[in-house]
Amino acid sequence: MNIYPELLETLIENFKKFPGIGERTAERYALALIKMDSEDLKDFSVAIDKIKKDLKTCDTCGHLTDQNTCSICADDNRNHNLICVVEDYKNIFMFEKTGKFAGVYHVLGGLISPIDGINPDDLNIHKLISRCKELNDAEVIIALRPTIEGDTTTLYLKKILDRENIKITRLSYGIPMGAELDYLDILTLERALYDRKEVE
Amino acid sequence: MNIYPELLETLIENFKKFPGIGERTAERYALALIKMDSEDLKDFSVAIDKIKKDLKTCDTCGHLTDQNTCSICADDNRNHNLICVVEDYKNIFMFEKTGKFAGVYHVLGGLISPIDGINPDDLNIHKLISRCKELNDAEVIIALRPTIEGDTTTLYLKKILDRENIKITRLSYGIPMGAELDYLDILTLERALYDRKEVE
Repeated sequence: MNIYPELLETLIENFKKFPGIGERTAERYALALIKMDSEDLKDFSVAIDKIKKDLKTCDTCGHLTDQNTCSICADDNRNHNLICVVEDYKNIFMFEKTGKFAGVYHVLGGLISPIDGINPDDLNIHKLISRCKELNDAEVIIALRPTIEGDTTTLYLKKILDRENIKITRLSYGIPMGAELDYLDILTLERALYDRKEVE
Repeated sequence: MNIYPELLETLIENFKKFPGIGERTAERYALALIKMDSEDLKDFSVAIDKIKKDLKTCDTCGHLTDQNTCSICADDNRNHNLICVVEDYKNIFMFEKTGKFAGVYHVLGGLISPIDGINPDDLNIHKLISRCKELNDAEVIIALRPTIEGDTTTLYLKKILDRENIKITRLSYGIPMGAELDYLDILTLERALYDRKEVE
């Protein structure tokens, strides 16, 4: 016999599918739902049901959108000659929160990783090249993870974009703002030393 | 302009209503939903929508159930002469997890707290008395929080149940299992000393 009514069990099982949610937290959330407003529950339920129907990827950049073209690609006030290449659309939300990037994006949908069987053809790279070819004076900013896979992908993109004479840059590596030098990993410190900049 | 598509915003707002979920976690959960299986999303959505319709309180004990009588009250293998009185149905789930209680429950739905305007009449007490009156040789175990409100409620119940000649006990107070004595609060230690038991 289950401790919880069946409906609660269903909810608990569903909450356990979220990242970092275990049994106890799932129970807590399921029980919290019971106390919520009926209207809110209706909205929540409908929104969850609509996810797969409403959300798709932007035809141009691969970002998450409820339109054919995402709000960023559709924005004429942005610099469409400046393309920031990211691994996942989640990264775009992070950049947008800074409010400091006025260009557009391109989502690769992964990183080159021969070990995991992920080759350049599995990524959204052809589309990036064709986007770049349509532009004059484009700059591609690579914003990938500083890992072997990220570096491999960056080098691959550089090789291809160089052929097309497109300017290619990457995010700077270094000490994160506010970090304690004492607790920094050696690789980051090494990189920060190597990439040191003149004080202006 | 919103950073997220509207549907995602709705989901994020809903997740923020859960206990202990802030902006960042809500975003993480909303984005995690996108990666989930369509079937699972459907089940989840339906379950959320059904909460208010399907879940109600047991006619007998006030526990959460999808029937008129909860599975505990309906279970003939349990001892219906042993009633454990709890503040909230959530407590029942905790007791059931121990698997060590073979009696039944009674949910008060709160604690007496004159400061908050909660009087005995606001709680599910009349029903408890009438349940007890129908039994021979009943024992009521009070399992309320060891706070002023919990103690007030316990004393009130004792006064009333004594009139009906019903045996009334409460959970033992003392040192939690595995606790470090060094870090224990003084009140608990005092209580554990006062309630000391002979070693058998």
